[in-house]
Amino acid sequence: MNTRPQVVPVPADPERYAYSFGGGSPVVTVEPGSVLELFTEDCFGGRVRGPADLPSQVCAFPYLNPVTGPVAIAGAEPGDALAVHFIDIAPARDWGVSSTFPHFGALTATHTTAMLHPALEERVWVYDLDTKAGTCRFEASGGGFTVDLPLDPMHGTVGVAPAAGERLMSISPGVHGGNMDTPELRAGTTVWFGVNVEGAMLALGDGHARQGEGEVCGTAVETAMNTVVAVDLVKGAAPAVPRLESDEFLLSTGHARPLEDAFRISQHDLVRWTADLAGLDPLDAYQLVSQAGLAPAANVCDSQYTMVAKLPKRVLGGARAYDGVHDRLRELGAEYLRGR
Amino acid sequence: MNTRPQVVPVPADPERYAYSFGGGSPVVTVEPGSVLELFTEDCFGGRVRGPADLPSQVCAFPYLNPVTGPVAIAGAEPGDALAVHFIDIAPARDWGVSSTFPHFGALTATHTTAMLHPALEERVWVYDLDTKAGTCRFEASGGGFTVDLPLDPMHGTVGVAPAAGERLMSISPGVHGGNMDTPELRAGTTVWFGVNVEGAMLALGDGHARQGEGEVCGTAVETAMNTVVAVDLVKGAAPAVPRLESDEFLLSTGHARPLEDAFRISQHDLVRWTADLAGLDPLDAYQLVSQAGLAPAANVCDSQYTMVAKLPKRVLGGARAYDGVHDRLRELGAEYLRGR
Amino acid sequence: MNTRPQVVPVPADPERYAYSFGGGSPVVTVEPGSVLELFTEDCFGGRVRGPADLPSQVCAFPYLNPVTGPVAIAGAEPGDALAVHFIDIAPARDWGVSSTFPHFGALTATHTTAMLHPALEERVWVYDLDTKAGTCRFEASGGGFTVDLPLDPMHGTVGVAPAAGERLMSISPGVHGGNMDTPELRAGTTVWFGVNVEGAMLALGDGHARQGEGEVCGTAVETAMNTVVAVDLVKGAAPAVPRLESDEFLLSTGHARPLEDAFRISQHDLVRWTADLAGLDPLDAYQLVSQAGLAPAANVCDSQYTMVAKLPKRVLGGARAYDGVHDRLRELGAEYLRGR
Amino acid sequence: MNTRPQVVPVPADPERYAYSFGGGSPVVTVEPGSVLELFTEDCFGGRVRGPADLPSQVCAFPYLNPVTGPVAIAGAEPGDALAVHFIDIAPARDWGVSSTFPHFGALTATHTTAMLHPALEERVWVYDLDTKAGTCRFEASGGGFTVDLPLDPMHGTVGVAPAAGERLMSISPGVHGGNMDTPELRAGTTVWFGVNVEGAMLALGDGHARQGEGEVCGTAVETAMNTVVAVDLVKGAAPAVPRLESDEFLLSTGHARPLEDAFRISQHDLVRWTADLAGLDPLDAYQLVSQAGLAPAANVCDSQYTMVAKLPKRVLGGARAYDGVHDRLRELGAEYLRGR
Repeated sequence: MNTRPQVVPVPADPERYAYSFGGGSPVVTVEPGSVLELFTEDCFGGRVRGPADLPSQVCAFPYLNPVTGPVAIAGAEPGDALAVHFIDIAPARDWGVSSTFPHFGALTATHTTAMLHPALEERVWVYDLDTKAGTCRFEASGGGFTVDLPLDPMHGTVGVAPAAGERLMSISPGVHGGNMDTPELRAGTTVWFGVNVEGAMLALGDGHARQGEGEVCGTAVETAMNTVVAVDLVKGAAPAVPRLESDEFLLSTGHARPLEDAFRISQHDLVRWTADLAGLDPLDAYQLVSQAGLAPAANVCDSQYTMVAKLPKRVLGGARAYDGVHDRLRELGAEYLRGR
Repeated sequence: MNTRPQVVPVPADPERYAYSFGGGSPVVTVEPGSVLELFTEDCFGGRVRGPADLPSQVCAFPYLNPVTGPVAIAGAEPGDALAVHFIDIAPARDWGVSSTFPHFGALTATHTTAMLHPALEERVWVYDLDTKAGTCRFEASGGGFTVDLPLDPMHGTVGVAPAAGERLMSISPGVHGGNMDTPELRAGTTVWFGVNVEGAMLALGDGHARQGEGEVCGTAVETAMNTVVAVDLVKGAAPAVPRLESDEFLLSTGHARPLEDAFRISQHDLVRWTADLAGLDPLDAYQLVSQAGLAPAANVCDSQYTMVAKLPKRVLGGARAYDGVHDRLRELGAEYLRGR
Repeated sequence: MNTRPQVVPVPADPERYAYSFGGGSPVVTVEPGSVLELFTEDCFGGRVRGPADLPSQVCAFPYLNPVTGPVAIAGAEPGDALAVHFIDIAPARDWGVSSTFPHFGALTATHTTAMLHPALEERVWVYDLDTKAGTCRFEASGGGFTVDLPLDPMHGTVGVAPAAGERLMSISPGVHGGNMDTPELRAGTTVWFGVNVEGAMLALGDGHARQGEGEVCGTAVETAMNTVVAVDLVKGAAPAVPRLESDEFLLSTGHARPLEDAFRISQHDLVRWTADLAGLDPLDAYQLVSQAGLAPAANVCDSQYTMVAKLPKRVLGGARAYDGVHDRLRELGAEYLRGR
Repeated sequence: MNTRPQVVPVPADPERYAYSFGGGSPVVTVEPGSVLELFTEDCFGGRVRGPADLPSQVCAFPYLNPVTGPVAIAGAEPGDALAVHFIDIAPARDWGVSSTFPHFGALTATHTTAMLHPALEERVWVYDLDTKAGTCRFEASGGGFTVDLPLDPMHGTVGVAPAAGERLMSISPGVHGGNMDTPELRAGTTVWFGVNVEGAMLALGDGHARQGEGEVCGTAVETAMNTVVAVDLVKGAAPAVPRLESDEFLLSTGHARPLEDAFRISQHDLVRWTADLAGLDPLDAYQLVSQAGLAPAANVCDSQYTMVAKLPKRVLGGARAYDGVHDRLRELGAEYLRGR
């Protein structure tokens, strides 16, 4: 890591956006340790620009949630752990957009929670993004109420090709990652995936200027992003589910329905991770996580719900996950940002 | 509030602990605006004091989770909102205890999530509590690992008599409150209940020196507490579910299974609360909560799971919930603490 | 059983209907082996008699789902099994009624599956009951479509006082029975409860002229019933959940949310019952039930959902549950009917 | 249909089994109205032949649940309804096999309902199949208990290529069909799928000599099958979910978690189907299904749970689904069987 990292601009041709994880050929192949510069379109493909652009009319299923990629990581093999460190996530526009969508969201009947209700009203909200001020502005559609919320850019969707030759829509989350929609996935964070196919086939998209926990109405403040990530590999260290690591926290994710199963998966993985790092037996780790852990919702609207289990790293003292890769990528990112 | 508040010591005779919400006669009747000093036993009735005191052996169902009360609030009638403000929650012992319990917890088969597995090992952990240092010490049962966690005292259980003449075990959460087990319920917080019977019949217990979100293993760092609360009434303002208010946040709770229904209830109530306070239509409030809200798990182990929906008050600008009762009780608490 | 059974008419004074399980004093005390003749009102208290009688207007919560009883069974003690054999269930009127109810039912947002939808239309359907022809007639509210469905009278609600001093609304199902709403509970069937309090405190109501599996819209063809049951005790043989027995089937019930937990509970109990009766180890019983069992939904609308697990008795050869009590009560019922 | 149907033997080369729905090229293309003769391997690929052949050892993920196909249906286009009528399902061997599988099944911790329990014992049961007697023999692994269960052959898995370019493992059920595991799918039944891609791409496998409702332990009496189906198309008539039709019943399926969502989907579709066929408004259809419908579980173990909603056709009088295609294929099947 003493040498300047290789910086690779990833092509983001609208003709080449992917709409699934799995299948397709890589847009580029990079070495572990590389820094990737990417542009990602918003989840609506940029087609929702104002209150009159109803997503159900201007978007055409399944052309939702375009992802940039896949990027092949040279040397990645099934069973490896792929680290994707987010160096920077910057809105590429000065506006973002959110909406309700017919029969989608947590407080509406859906095609899965099937009911006899007609759909709620489909409505679009446009947010002004002010990167200088670090705000995104909510304005009530009826007018008369405005509030500046903190800008907190993140990616809703990042993942790798699934196992068993599956090919899954980019709007689905799962053990391959995908549309996890957790606000924890901001710059400064590393996400870990188990590699399922040669090259891993990383793709990402669905930038959010900010998102509440649970993504209750089904969409965040959606916007295009200029994003920089660094990637690395740890051979044979595939986690069972996507894991995140920040300077302060270890985070495990669970993707399932019902929501308690997403909770169970995330906590179960965090218990195992804690046991591994601290040399505890499973019951001791269970106890420690029970008292010291956090458990925020990520999404409660997608085809699988996502819960996050979160432990402050200081609870584990000097334990270093994955031999310190997060710290090294953090440094690499700092170096990149200094050199920009 | 210019006059000194009436301070009422609430009797906490072990013979008079309640094990349910609903039924029973009040241990004391107090005026709205009173400050109550209470002692609460831990959820094990103080019978688990070391690794050899297995809860399933030393505790006798249904004599679990004793609550102090009920306290009748003079003038409380069905349809009113009862405010209970936590002025102080102080561990009454220098130790706390946690345990696994056969077929109870989030990562084990239970009587509800019924499976063919034998129970996980029942094990007890004793924590040293150091109120000066503000820590509680976890020690792995196998030895060799110790960590000081921040002390963060709270009550797992607080509630009123249920509606419809029901009488529910104190270990159950619900719209009457009860065993909600959210770490948000710390000193400085006001909790709001809908009153169902004359006098409301407030009771509380289940002190936790600290608790992780989700209370994964089924128990927190359980300890006896010396607790001070102030109570007040808002006529005819009963919330649909228990609500919390701190200096920074509005919080709605949902108690249900599956966990997504607990999430839905909490978010639905927060959307309505937001709409009321900010004068928004429901869809605008839905949108605002979707982008600005937090959604931590409270418990994923009790007979109903509990989720919390949480909105920073600054998002709503100058809006004041319940005509500022929280602020007034906060002041009353400060006055009490100064005078102690 | 050679002597004529004692026949006890149970008082059914509208002033004395119960609306909960638990609490209240018995309307009568009977000996094990007695035959009870009861009248039960419909779940609406008889107040819904035509399309203009909207339940939300003519009924007053919590005065819903009146039950007749409680009946104390002499000698019943906690830990015993109470057998309630349904000898006859006969509609007491030549009409029944069904309805949607605001925010109640499986295909609508509810207070638990909370959503932003307004309630579905509240609508009442009146059915003509023809006990001679054995039919109940559905007529579309819009007219133009009529069909005679088979009369299949059953009780939605039957149970005993809950454990731990709880008092639960009669519209809730649980391990004490209550509002289980399974169409399996027809004449010729014995239902088994674990006794929780002295006298058991049996109560029943909520007669249905017929009901589909799942009670999708939340109500069945509700009608008053003249019902005859025989009761008996097996000391110390309390089942973990309500069990049913017919001439052909053993049936276990599970009451929980989410629905898979209701399924798990019912199957788990049937596996244990099968293991006990056939002398199998749990895995062999699990295998046998997996291939030979049935699993119909009972209700997917009440505060707990109910699933039924069902095994043909012939699969177990000569095994006799509870020492043949069902057969004896069946005979007793036949004798009663002959003598009527 | 006056002419002899075209009978097409479908190649079933072990080298060409498919393990997913979606992707791959057709093994054969047939005209609507054709009769297909297929051999299907069991879900273990025939590798589990006795108690010593533990599935987790002799099978290699993802090579589980091989399906025969895909078969392209000439002229099938997205939006069409594909009818697959089961003329005959005959065990191809005189034995079948069932097993527990580590962390799979309804009464065990799984990777989704993640818990700290070690896996239940993995055990294999071999069943003797006697097609003459129409029985399959269960024998307890410990010996000492034997029972002949009725043979009731069915296919656990049948489906088409999914929408949106997805490629899903053959062990997953969904709106494309797949591993639905309902015992209703026996000879004499027609199953309807919405077509998502040109040619529909029908595949099937996972024969069961019989299966209990819910497939509690995760596997049925698994065996290879010689199966005959007839296929047909109705242009532009794609159902939202797989539907079944027998001489007596209309059946809708729902595939989701939690189980109540699978229930909701199936009931919602049956309500719509009923409304369409009987010319009822949705609330009248909801009412009718609520009183006349059945709701058996299909599987409560797969990646999506499956519920079935079932209405006797006589309830709808003379209504004919899909213009009588089931009746015509039934006749075609009878003709085929006579001519064999």
